[in-house]
Amino acid sequence: MLSKSRVKYIQSLYHKKLRDEEGCFVVEGPKITEEFLLHAPDAILSLYAVKSWLNDNEALIKRVDSSGVFLIEEGDLKKISSRSTPNQVLAIVKKREERHEVPAPPGIFLMLDSIQDPGNFGTIVRIADWFGISSILCSKSCADLYNPKVVQSTMGSLLRVDVVYTELTDWCKQNTGIAIYAATLHGKPVYECSPVQNGALLMGNESKGIQPELLRFCKEQLTIPRKGKAESLNAAVATGILLSHLVKQG
Amino acid sequence: MLSKSRVKYIQSLYHKKLRDEEGCFVVEGPKITEEFLLHAPDAILSLYAVKSWLNDNEALIKRVDSSGVFLIEEGDLKKISSRSTPNQVLAIVKKREERHEVPAPPGIFLMLDSIQDPGNFGTIVRIADWFGISSILCSKSCADLYNPKVVQSTMGSLLRVDVVYTELTDWCKQNTGIAIYAATLHGKPVYECSPVQNGALLMGNESKGIQPELLRFCKEQLTIPRKGKAESLNAAVATGILLSHLVKQG
Repeated sequence: MLSKSRVKYIQSLYHKKLRDEEGCFVVEGPKITEEFLLHAPDAILSLYAVKSWLNDNEALIKRVDSSGVFLIEEGDLKKISSRSTPNQVLAIVKKREERHEVPAPPGIFLMLDSIQDPGNFGTIVRIADWFGISSILCSKSCADLYNPKVVQSTMGSLLRVDVVYTELTDWCKQNTGIAIYAATLHGKPVYECSPVQNGALLMGNESKGIQPELLRFCKEQLTIPRKGKAESLNAAVATGILLSHLVKQG
Repeated sequence: MLSKSRVKYIQSLYHKKLRDEEGCFVVEGPKITEEFLLHAPDAILSLYAVKSWLNDNEALIKRVDSSGVFLIEEGDLKKISSRSTPNQVLAIVKKREERHEVPAPPGIFLMLDSIQDPGNFGTIVRIADWFGISSILCSKSCADLYNPKVVQSTMGSLLRVDVVYTELTDWCKQNTGIAIYAATLHGKPVYECSPVQNGALLMGNESKGIQPELLRFCKEQLTIPRKGKAESLNAAVATGILLSHLVKQG
């Protein structure tokens, strides 16, 4: 049985402030925990799982120090999980070292201005990973990468994509040589845009879009032409569509 | 105050069986309720809202019969809502008449084989609406269109897109003239595909993909080329990307 203080400690990691202080976060469920065991076993500080999962994953578990592996009951898992239906296993994982710079060209990277929905944010990290984009530059108003719903939506891609939080306006002032393409509702149809070798795609907030001050730094505004009547597209879907057109022959 | 039987009735509509029997479903929150008030006021059977929302929407509310509009307290809203944080207003809406046929060409429509996540399913309806696609043909194993999370993710687009549930394999046997493009992981790069004037885009289940029996009926398999390491893309994101390339000059 888990001690009360351990339960309390794990629950505390569902708050950003405590995650920042402790430098670690929670990963839940078999799929993503297995990703971490495979690709970043050294980052796993401790692992809590029910018996059936431990039996099924003997080989994988050998990748981490056995003193950090705990067999627990469903009842305890429920106490430490953020989900209404917990799923077999949960791990405490060390954050990667924070990066403060974005790699120089060549290549495309993403800029996110206030993407606040955790599901959207995590899905965008996964999209970046699919298209081989290694860096995302975020405004500080974006969701926290280590929020449990973000972690879940990345499906493990947060292992491979650098996410850097910064003041976007200041950053743009200091990096005027970067070609920034902004996603807006009234730009040039993305279908007419040539593939981009170097530059950034900037996506804005789910309801307010990109802050006007940032638009000043953009080389071009791009739009996904609408043929029907939906008011907008989901932010992650729009990111995927725009990226696919920008990288297609790159 | 709402009667116990009324509360119980509304709660029952969170179950598909009861929605099917009653022919109605629940819509929650200002944005989507306002969409229904604007575009389908006749479908609204009753509306439950807190005072501030009623005060702010006097003109809109006039579009429905006043005998169906109820001023309620936050406490009652919490009882009838499916959300942990209810949002001002909730309406009971009559389902549209079920359609059993898909319109003939010209145009593109969507086919969904077992899209089970409600958020993905609703987001795909919204994407269809953006690209002017009026019909979606679904396997019976797809999520229910009137599930509260699906309704929410459509952002009102379920008002404009016909969603038809059918046995996809039987349907394909009877409609061999339709050019079906299947989304798979090992098909032709979608970037090389010419825009499609008539036909269907077929998307498969989030983890299992398209059932092999259905693939036999497809004209071509299409893939979004991967440059990075993510195992897959979210199903709604992939739908958006593929559609954008198929319709781009159509």
